[in-house]
Amino acid sequence: MFELHPQLDKDCFVIEEGDKFHLLLLNNADYPWLILVPHTDCLELHHMDIDQQLMWLYKIQQTSIFMEKHFDIEKLNVASIGNMVRQMHWHIIGRREDDALFPNVVWGSPAQSTYSKSQVESIQQAWALYSKK
Amino acid sequence: MFELHPQLDKDCFVIEEGDKFHLLLLNNADYPWLILVPHTDCLELHHMDIDQQLMWLYKIQQTSIFMEKHFDIEKLNVASIGNMVRQMHWHIIGRREDDALFPNVVWGSPAQSTYSKSQVESIQQAWALYSKK
Repeated sequence: MFELHPQLDKDCFVIEEGDKFHLLLLNNADYPWLILVPHTDCLELHHMDIDQQLMWLYKIQQTSIFMEKHFDIEKLNVASIGNMVRQMHWHIIGRREDDALFPNVVWGSPAQSTYSKSQVESIQQAWALYSKK
Repeated sequence: MFELHPQLDKDCFVIEEGDKFHLLLLNNADYPWLILVPHTDCLELHHMDIDQQLMWLYKIQQTSIFMEKHFDIEKLNVASIGNMVRQMHWHIIGRREDDALFPNVVWGSPAQSTYSKSQVESIQQAWALYSKK
């Protein structure tokens, strides 16, 4: 039984809770910032078995394409860090040259703005439409 | 004909120059910090075709296992950022809870120590032995 890390649960909205992955939206409206959480106890990508890695590759691709379609972004930042929250989670962050921190990385800088309920619902709906095609 | 970005060429030592990838060592001895550069014009992982993505997955796995075997690390940080250097490159960084910046990310902090020639040669040799097995 998979359980989402309490810190991720606290900091994020759930965009999709699938059989094998959670897709989360970090409550930081400064950047489109999705977090993909494979349902695994492995802490590193290469510790997963090859089927899980291939499924991960598909989900990264699906999420990245959604980012490009739904948000006005110029560059993706994709990363597994896990220094604070060890449960494996992958950041997929959309960046623009005119965003507040560009070209610096966004980790470690507190959010300047957060989402309204209707903004979150709009992203959830867009994902549902996109991912069910 | 693939050409390595001048900034990567300047900042790194070449560990392996393969047909499809460069493996680089950033000249920052504070952390084991490898950089995998696929020979592609694509700026994002999901823009590559599926064969290239699968080859990338294999190389990430191979490099990650080397990191665990050769260096005394506790956590990997794996990331494609590309805000400054757009040529696609993947950071594979070994972290320890007692390293200088843990649990913060290492991007944006200048190196406190660099490699000697013999240290670089030792890593090049270890990779050659490991990757030719």
